Amino acid sequence: MRTAAENAELALLLEVTGTPKPGNVDRRRELSDLRFEHFLAGAVGARAGLTTAAEGAPVGEAFERAVAGMSDQSGGNTQFGAVLLVTPLVRAAAAEEVTPAGARAVVADTTVDDAVGFYRAFEHVDVSVGDLPAESPLPDVRRGADAEAALRDRELTLADVMAESAANDGIAREYAEGFPRTFRTADRILDGSEPVADRAADAFLAALASEPDTFVRARHGHEVAEEVRRRAAAAREGTVEVEALAEEFVARGINPGTTADLVAGGLFVALERGLEV
Amino acid sequence: MRTAAENAELALLLEVTGTPKPGNVDRRRELSDLRFEHFLAGAVGARAGLTTAAEGAPVGEAFERAVAGMSDQSGGNTQFGAVLLVTPLVRAAAAEEVTPAGARAVVADTTVDDAVGFYRAFEHVDVSVGDLPAESPLPDVRRGADAEAALRDRELTLADVMAESAANDGIAREYAEGFPRTFRTADRILDGSEPVADRAADAFLAALASEPDTFVRARHGHEVAEEVRRRAAAAREGTVEVEALAEEFVARGINPGTTADLVAGGLFVALERGLEV
Repeated sequence: MRTAAENAELALLLEVTGTPKPGNVDRRRELSDLRFEHFLAGAVGARAGLTTAAEGAPVGEAFERAVAGMSDQSGGNTQFGAVLLVTPLVRAAAAEEVTPAGARAVVADTTVDDAVGFYRAFEHVDVSVGDLPAESPLPDVRRGADAEAALRDRELTLADVMAESAANDGIAREYAEGFPRTFRTADRILDGSEPVADRAADAFLAALASEPDTFVRARHGHEVAEEVRRRAAAAREGTVEVEALAEEFVARGINPGTTADLVAGGLFVALERGLEV
Repeated sequence: MRTAAENAELALLLEVTGTPKPGNVDRRRELSDLRFEHFLAGAVGARAGLTTAAEGAPVGEAFERAVAGMSDQSGGNTQFGAVLLVTPLVRAAAAEEVTPAGARAVVADTTVDDAVGFYRAFEHVDVSVGDLPAESPLPDVRRGADAEAALRDRELTLADVMAESAANDGIAREYAEGFPRTFRTADRILDGSEPVADRAADAFLAALASEPDTFVRARHGHEVAEEVRRRAAAAREGTVEVEALAEEFVARGINPGTTADLVAGGLFVALERGLEV
């Protein structure tokens, strides 16, 4: 039986394997400077940090270590959001069967130190992020470790940071709301009977069709994100050819990365609940 | 910087990713019951045992544990030979830079207990093996743990077992001869400038063209193994289309598994020597 950290690593690997996954790297589609092999190395490197989460390390510290390991490849940011999503789930899974209540409790228990670890993680890899609203109480994540004093002054825990970011970022919203889309994605994957990688691709398209991808929205705006959602829905209904959509999104530089991260989280929960590979 | 066990796991992942790799599973080709995802789970599962090898566990014990982990997926035997090849190399790499002399010393130091561990590993997964010659002093590997008494009676170390098997099995020959093809493959991979997965596929074809694959020979006989070698050489020269060869080998049930294992070993050595992913 695989450990929680092994299942988390396998979830990252299965996520990038599923194809077609319009707009993202998968085993059949690569970008010129971000290739499938970078995601393999990213997953391998993330595991040591995820193992510390399973052993009870604080979420922020485990996350930072996992991101440091993930970044030890030349492709740049491969799985920052996916690692952010699975870290508290691994911690929850190590204690008992992974449940929304257990995951919610892990988030509720986070501290200012966890927030500092989260900010530090941005120093290991160049993460594409949008600008904060002017009224946000949060320091800019691009400040990395330099944000520590501001976080301590304002007594911001990781849960606070995620709650403040929930409107702009799909992974933060999962933290804030008890991981509803992650568990829904896990159920969808568990219900299937196809090879697991094919179920991952199907779950990606379903999630992309259900809500605008927040990474696409941050980079291309509301209208493009909604168009992407609508066309993913059309692909599910069969009125748009999914392979053609994949080609087009890559050509337009549209990478629905947050949706891929949700699928990685869903795969992890499904593996913990007995998904057989 | 990745640990030796991380590099070994990554080597298994990169090996199966390289495509086209005529006759074997890769990221673009699957058999109906042995899929790419099984190799992902196999690599993830092998790492815990490989970690014990890096920490100094005896080769036989570490190998058995790695195979037990590798087998925790439903595809069957994914990387038995590759794990057998990398286990002593991981042990050697943990002590110092991995060299033929270091790897040879690890093999020379193996004991009867290591041979017992090797035989036990066959209990975790169904490995396709040929019949032993009638005059062989070795117990049949299919006896698994039941071979222990015979191994102890005859005082057979793992090095002895490999030396006796060298004529029939390409991985055993690597043990017996100081891993010459593994290090040659590593040099070839390090010399390239393409994406690493493409170099792995190229190294596979080069190795297949240079010597008959012993797994193909055990299953299909000398003539087929030599034909496969010849046609791989023709593919390298461009007189046979490599994608067509890939389709044909799969259709004929020809899987040059030992050559794939050699590439995994070569990738490991290359990663230890600074191959950047």
